[in-house]
Amino acid sequence: MKIDPTPERLEFLARDYSQGFIADLGMKAVQYEKGYLESRLEIQPRHRQQDHYIHAGVLATMADHTAGYAAFSLVADDFRILTVEFKINFFRPAYGQGLVCKSRILHQGGQVLVGESEVYDQQPEGIILAAKATITLMAVHGSRIKKVSKQQAFKHER
Amino acid sequence: MKIDPTPERLEFLARDYSQGFIADLGMKAVQYEKGYLESRLEIQPRHRQQDHYIHAGVLATMADHTAGYAAFSLVADDFRILTVEFKINFFRPAYGQGLVCKSRILHQGGQVLVGESEVYDQQPEGIILAAKATITLMAVHGSRIKKVSKQQAFKHER
Amino acid sequence: MKIDPTPERLEFLARDYSQGFIADLGMKAVQYEKGYLESRLEIQPRHRQQDHYIHAGVLATMADHTAGYAAFSLVADDFRILTVEFKINFFRPAYGQGLVCKSRILHQGGQVLVGESEVYDQQPEGIILAAKATITLMAVHGSRIKKVSKQQAFKHER
Amino acid sequence: MKIDPTPERLEFLARDYSQGFIADLGMKAVQYEKGYLESRLEIQPRHRQQDHYIHAGVLATMADHTAGYAAFSLVADDFRILTVEFKINFFRPAYGQGLVCKSRILHQGGQVLVGESEVYDQQPEGIILAAKATITLMAVHGSRIKKVSKQQAFKHER
Repeated sequence: MKIDPTPERLEFLARDYSQGFIADLGMKAVQYEKGYLESRLEIQPRHRQQDHYIHAGVLATMADHTAGYAAFSLVADDFRILTVEFKINFFRPAYGQGLVCKSRILHQGGQVLVGESEVYDQQPEGIILAAKATITLMAVHGSRIKKVSKQQAFKHER
Repeated sequence: MKIDPTPERLEFLARDYSQGFIADLGMKAVQYEKGYLESRLEIQPRHRQQDHYIHAGVLATMADHTAGYAAFSLVADDFRILTVEFKINFFRPAYGQGLVCKSRILHQGGQVLVGESEVYDQQPEGIILAAKATITLMAVHGSRIKKVSKQQAFKHER
Repeated sequence: MKIDPTPERLEFLARDYSQGFIADLGMKAVQYEKGYLESRLEIQPRHRQQDHYIHAGVLATMADHTAGYAAFSLVADDFRILTVEFKINFFRPAYGQGLVCKSRILHQGGQVLVGESEVYDQQPEGIILAAKATITLMAVHGSRIKKVSKQQAFKHER
Repeated sequence: MKIDPTPERLEFLARDYSQGFIADLGMKAVQYEKGYLESRLEIQPRHRQQDHYIHAGVLATMADHTAGYAAFSLVADDFRILTVEFKINFFRPAYGQGLVCKSRILHQGGQVLVGESEVYDQQPEGIILAAKATITLMAVHGSRIKKVSKQQAFKHER
């Protein structure tokens, strides 16, 4: 199941990274390698919480999603990546103008992949490590993923 | 430091819950007790990911924020709650019309509080447990929180 | 793969629980139900650390092993249970005469099982919750486990 | 509170590392630097589980204890280090003749320290990464630690 991604595959994944919630938040894939992905987010007022810090949920979302897409570069294109669990430590509140997330897959064994994501805060004074996460992922063949039709998902959202 | 919250304090916290990122996402506090909080989110298309499932980052954000506010009900009103770390397991992809999060503080010792959040998926067929998180929080006196002025936070966002 | 364990299977698992490291430490299965196991350890001086507290590693070992055997009761007898990862929060240092661990499987989906373990400290003043863990387990068919022969494992231990 | 350890302090900590449960298991500190510690364990039959693998609890104990002592090198000698929580991922079952653990403190802020431990399995074919842990620690002044007298701890162990 371990594969080497083609440049076309990495380009496809970089575009594929920003959809739905992630596109709405404004997160973008900026540098792709086999088993590695760096993403970026320009901070807007809506990303902040009650004390003007960037909400921990923004950092967690970025850490999870970026690790998931780092994993996509290691599996065949008919596999999907699901997050089994993740754990994130926050070192200091983030408040800068941007976030950078660097995710690397540490281990791939059978269906399970384990990644690490470092989230950096771009403060006026420099860039500092704000959070670090460990993410356990599972590669599942597309045929085994329950399809949620747009109709089913969105019927209540008229 | 352990306190009993007044009804006014709980009403204040319920309103305070929805600010910035959380208000933008649409999450609301719906039931407050001492050390316990239930929140709700009506799902919109922008909360979903590439396969129409609700993004794991939405569940994680809700699990973290709701536990944090459950903790606020246990400390004096001049203390702030910071997330030290959290860990979340995803049991099944969520795709329903709403999420409900139930957070309870399990332990309060010194400055450290530990909470648990269960995130339920309101599917057409019924409500099911989609994820469970453990959140380590720290109560810090407001005077020790570095203030981020609106100006500092937002100067690059004009 | 989900099964109902027979009473004979539960009796077998209760005996099987105490082998190798676990038998050496003195941990015993004391109450088995489908998806649930309670274990007990009588504390000896060697279980303690530099400040006379019971070592965190003793609690962690008990939390992991007991959850693993709770999972065994939910799979066919030709499957093995592997720990993918676990996370444990320590609420207060334990120092009593015994530990009790209660492990319950929260979720079983495909090959992945998620359990929770609560470790209680039997202090002279009463029994209190000392730690709580979340354990992600995987059920793997015995034929897929690499066999480590006694010879291979122990050749350097003469 | 951040300090530079003297060589004498590091020598003291290296000896101090092996007490109680850790000495009983046979774990030893082998290389100390400021904020870094490497430890070693020669595997004995009693460290193994039912399938001859080294028990996950042995790896977890080593990951926790070694990170705790790495943290000791960063605080004044009247402070104690407590484990708030840890999380460990197991990449592959360990079965070799020895374990090596490398722990590094990633972050020290206020009272909270966050470390990472990598546990390596010394197999006949070479040394491989078997597990990785993240450990959240807290530095607490010795005067605030509840003393457990030998008498209190051991009175039931005659």
